[in-house]
Amino acid sequence: MSKDFFNDHQELLEQAVAATASRGYWSPFSESPSPRVYGETANDDAKAVFEAYQGKDFPLQQEGATGTVGNEQSPFGFALGIRYPQVPVETLIAQSEHALESWREAGPRVWSGVSLEILKRLNQRSFEMAYAVQHTTGQGFMMAFQAGGAHAQDRGVEAVAYAWQEMSRIPELVAWEKPQGKHDPIKMQKKFTVVPRGISLIIGCSTFPTWNGYPGLFASLATGNTVIVKPHPAAILPLAITVRIARDVLAEAGFDPNVVLLAAHSASDDTAQTLALNPAVKIIDFTGSSANGNWLEEHARQAQVYTEKAGVNQVIIDSVDDFKNVARNLAFSFALYSGQMCTAPQNIYVPRDGIKTADGHLSFDEVAAGLAEAVEKLTSDPAKAVEITGAIQNSATVQRLADAKALGLTVLADSRSLQHPQFENATVQTPLLLKANSNDPAISREWFGPIVFVVGTESTDSSIELAKQKVIEHGALSFSVYTTDDTVARKAQKAAERAGVSLSLNLTGAVFVNQTAAFSDFHGTGANPAANAALSDSAYVANRFRVVQTRWHA
Amino acid sequence: MSKDFFNDHQELLEQAVAATASRGYWSPFSESPSPRVYGETANDDAKAVFEAYQGKDFPLQQEGATGTVGNEQSPFGFALGIRYPQVPVETLIAQSEHALESWREAGPRVWSGVSLEILKRLNQRSFEMAYAVQHTTGQGFMMAFQAGGAHAQDRGVEAVAYAWQEMSRIPELVAWEKPQGKHDPIKMQKKFTVVPRGISLIIGCSTFPTWNGYPGLFASLATGNTVIVKPHPAAILPLAITVRIARDVLAEAGFDPNVVLLAAHSASDDTAQTLALNPAVKIIDFTGSSANGNWLEEHARQAQVYTEKAGVNQVIIDSVDDFKNVARNLAFSFALYSGQMCTAPQNIYVPRDGIKTADGHLSFDEVAAGLAEAVEKLTSDPAKAVEITGAIQNSATVQRLADAKALGLTVLADSRSLQHPQFENATVQTPLLLKANSNDPAISREWFGPIVFVVGTESTDSSIELAKQKVIEHGALSFSVYTTDDTVARKAQKAAERAGVSLSLNLTGAVFVNQTAAFSDFHGTGANPAANAALSDSAYVANRFRVVQTRWHA
Repeated sequence: MSKDFFNDHQELLEQAVAATASRGYWSPFSESPSPRVYGETANDDAKAVFEAYQGKDFPLQQEGATGTVGNEQSPFGFALGIRYPQVPVETLIAQSEHALESWREAGPRVWSGVSLEILKRLNQRSFEMAYAVQHTTGQGFMMAFQAGGAHAQDRGVEAVAYAWQEMSRIPELVAWEKPQGKHDPIKMQKKFTVVPRGISLIIGCSTFPTWNGYPGLFASLATGNTVIVKPHPAAILPLAITVRIARDVLAEAGFDPNVVLLAAHSASDDTAQTLALNPAVKIIDFTGSSANGNWLEEHARQAQVYTEKAGVNQVIIDSVDDFKNVARNLAFSFALYSGQMCTAPQNIYVPRDGIKTADGHLSFDEVAAGLAEAVEKLTSDPAKAVEITGAIQNSATVQRLADAKALGLTVLADSRSLQHPQFENATVQTPLLLKANSNDPAISREWFGPIVFVVGTESTDSSIELAKQKVIEHGALSFSVYTTDDTVARKAQKAAERAGVSLSLNLTGAVFVNQTAAFSDFHGTGANPAANAALSDSAYVANRFRVVQTRWHA
Repeated sequence: MSKDFFNDHQELLEQAVAATASRGYWSPFSESPSPRVYGETANDDAKAVFEAYQGKDFPLQQEGATGTVGNEQSPFGFALGIRYPQVPVETLIAQSEHALESWREAGPRVWSGVSLEILKRLNQRSFEMAYAVQHTTGQGFMMAFQAGGAHAQDRGVEAVAYAWQEMSRIPELVAWEKPQGKHDPIKMQKKFTVVPRGISLIIGCSTFPTWNGYPGLFASLATGNTVIVKPHPAAILPLAITVRIARDVLAEAGFDPNVVLLAAHSASDDTAQTLALNPAVKIIDFTGSSANGNWLEEHARQAQVYTEKAGVNQVIIDSVDDFKNVARNLAFSFALYSGQMCTAPQNIYVPRDGIKTADGHLSFDEVAAGLAEAVEKLTSDPAKAVEITGAIQNSATVQRLADAKALGLTVLADSRSLQHPQFENATVQTPLLLKANSNDPAISREWFGPIVFVVGTESTDSSIELAKQKVIEHGALSFSVYTTDDTVARKAQKAAERAGVSLSLNLTGAVFVNQTAAFSDFHGTGANPAANAALSDSAYVANRFRVVQTRWHA
């Protein structure tokens, strides 16, 4: 007898649907790695599990594997040595199509129940996931625990909530009765069936494999599609654990576990392209470079393609109460996970004749120096700094730091290598702050990593215009403005609305522009070149299913 | 002082939103051309207005016109001679972009209120619209009154209801408060703004300019976009009247009337392509040929493209109670508007060894002859027949009848020309019924017009498989099955769900497969090649707007 998980999670689902509408703070999961929540031995157990994975075949049974693959390196300086089953693309497609036959019949209740059960079990495994995320992405442990765990799970629940909200508006059986004046009414019965699109492909990224992967995975699964998860070759483990849990739940619910499949592959092959162009693949969720995202939008015409790509994130400093507070907040955003976030600020616009503060005027150079000083201070103790910066995920980012320095711009704060107290071979870098002019071509492209340009402008008006144009032309996932002037705030808001980017005003303290909260903040707008969708909204889910109706005379 | 139309229509809007969820019968408009509803002199007045339009400049003031254009011919055999302002594409785009500046600020209440006021006034002008639709499309008067009037207006209200439903889930201002254990909570304020995509282009068709045009027009307008309406050169008048009314309402509401613009043009120019590829055009709604629809999907990459294209509609006869009832119903569907409907049935599958009826077995030839007889009977009185068939809109359809006859297939019922008792030059044709084999290539393409193939099959199972494959490969907007066997009905339903086409079971009496009812039947599924969207659902509206948020510390 298979299990009906919907009843177990119906209350949670209803709360989640309500939360997406009220958009106040809400989360079903604890972001705190508290032993009281996750168990007294959760951390030790998870560490042991993570260590046991290393150097072995990952315990995932997928039929049709022709070998194993896997070459993950922890950015903290060691090889994971985990081998994953490698299944040819045509086998994966055939398995997914076969699994779709029964999964599509199960209907919204079952799809949602199974999805939420998977998320619940993922939450229970948050410590294990934290180690997996830390040692593939390079995130510090706490960030890996939160962003790779509860916050990613939140985004998954949010996607299920949107899917449920849209599907539950479709009635199952309806009596239709049309009056005919003095004659008898025409009476029809109508049955409405929610049908999935087909196979959904998740193309994972190397920096936030779960946080960026779960919205698409669960939006598709909860609308009856089968899912092939193709992790980035550098960050397979977090998604392999996810797929394994998903398959366990599917089997318990009485379904073919191939409803969710892992497509592990090596960096040198064309698995991603081959999967993306397969006619049976009807939905693709992608996070990664603009080049790859644009290629998918251009070529994978048989599919609905949802992309999150690169952008140039914008900050404007106009006027502040306490500049030290502002600098501290920004420095943290620069250093957090070494700027390896799609939301990390890059261009900081400051009027060339300086800014007003509650303590008087600050010149451009004083502002620039103040930002640099805040970065130096934040990173002065390597033991504390590495918890914020984590490690560099990809050597291309180290090269990018060198390229940025080679631009010949004035260095406000140099990037320093830090020795990680725990992992001797970890690559850790502090942020690089450069001074740039507003017409410098360097500020019109993304410099992924801890690279920041402090840009002198004519005035705040020209900062706003510059930020707006950069977003329209190059895209952005975040936009942050510091001003004590309501008129400037209103202008910035209008510019944000025109450019299609969300705005954070005067962030200080413990709220950072790189972070968005599920159920309240939309991540991305889908209205500028950085992303063609937002996480999550109705548009993100409503086209993953269709409705087929049958009508007959009553 | 400008007028707030939202209050006037809020109750209607709430009823409409409820109707899209309950999907029982509902319409805010009367489909009956009753003097009690529309006024004692409504018909005479409208006829006079329609006659006054002829041979003159249409009373639509659009700045920047460089001349006039218009060469509409009534399919009932006379030239309309109406001249419309012709405005260059670049002028239209500039006007639309300028109008967007204030329209985008108005917000969901105003967008919805203005949209519903336009629809209310369109309803009051239903008789005038009926004449305009009749004498551009060739529909009989009653059909023009209903499909061009109340039913089109229903689809418009439905689109506004979906738009409102999705937009009203976005809160305007939210207090977000995240607990911090023993510390003070983090308190943020968040403002959410619904922003439009930009300019929306409606590409009208020549057969149902209002019914197929209103969903896109009102879905876009109600989500804050400006709209350029590009009518088919053969059916400008219905959309010109629509645009004129829209501009009146916009002006009364205090907006730039250029929020809605008419792009009348001649059949020989490239206005459609030039508009469709303009970077400012962010949404396109298209109804027409597969070639043009696929071209738009392929090339207008800057826009969200919603298309309704051609399909091959499918009918299966397996077993019936009363064959005469079935034949009468189908004959009406063949003849209705001479099959010039995207939903008109084309391929009728009948087992070669015949069907079961309550009165005993009928051979294939008896079924085919019975269908032909029903067509002959329905069209035997020209005066009655022309009210059903209307006139042929396009001479290409007359040619297609000749081409179909030239296929060399057995003619079951020949297409006859009928003399219209009222319009001596009208082109009126009765349906052509041909007998075809299941492997005949002719049944794999759309024969737009009154052309029907009665196709002999191995068995009902092979009819179902054939219908399913045709839908998957060539698309369909309707699928109709006659069976008294529940097992067959279930199989047909599964096939419909796999192929992504809606199913009508055992239609007899006054319900026809070519007709769908707003607020209850989805028109199209968006799940087969005939259309990439359904009229209307959440997916049809949710991506026409985006949300931009601003957050700050409370």
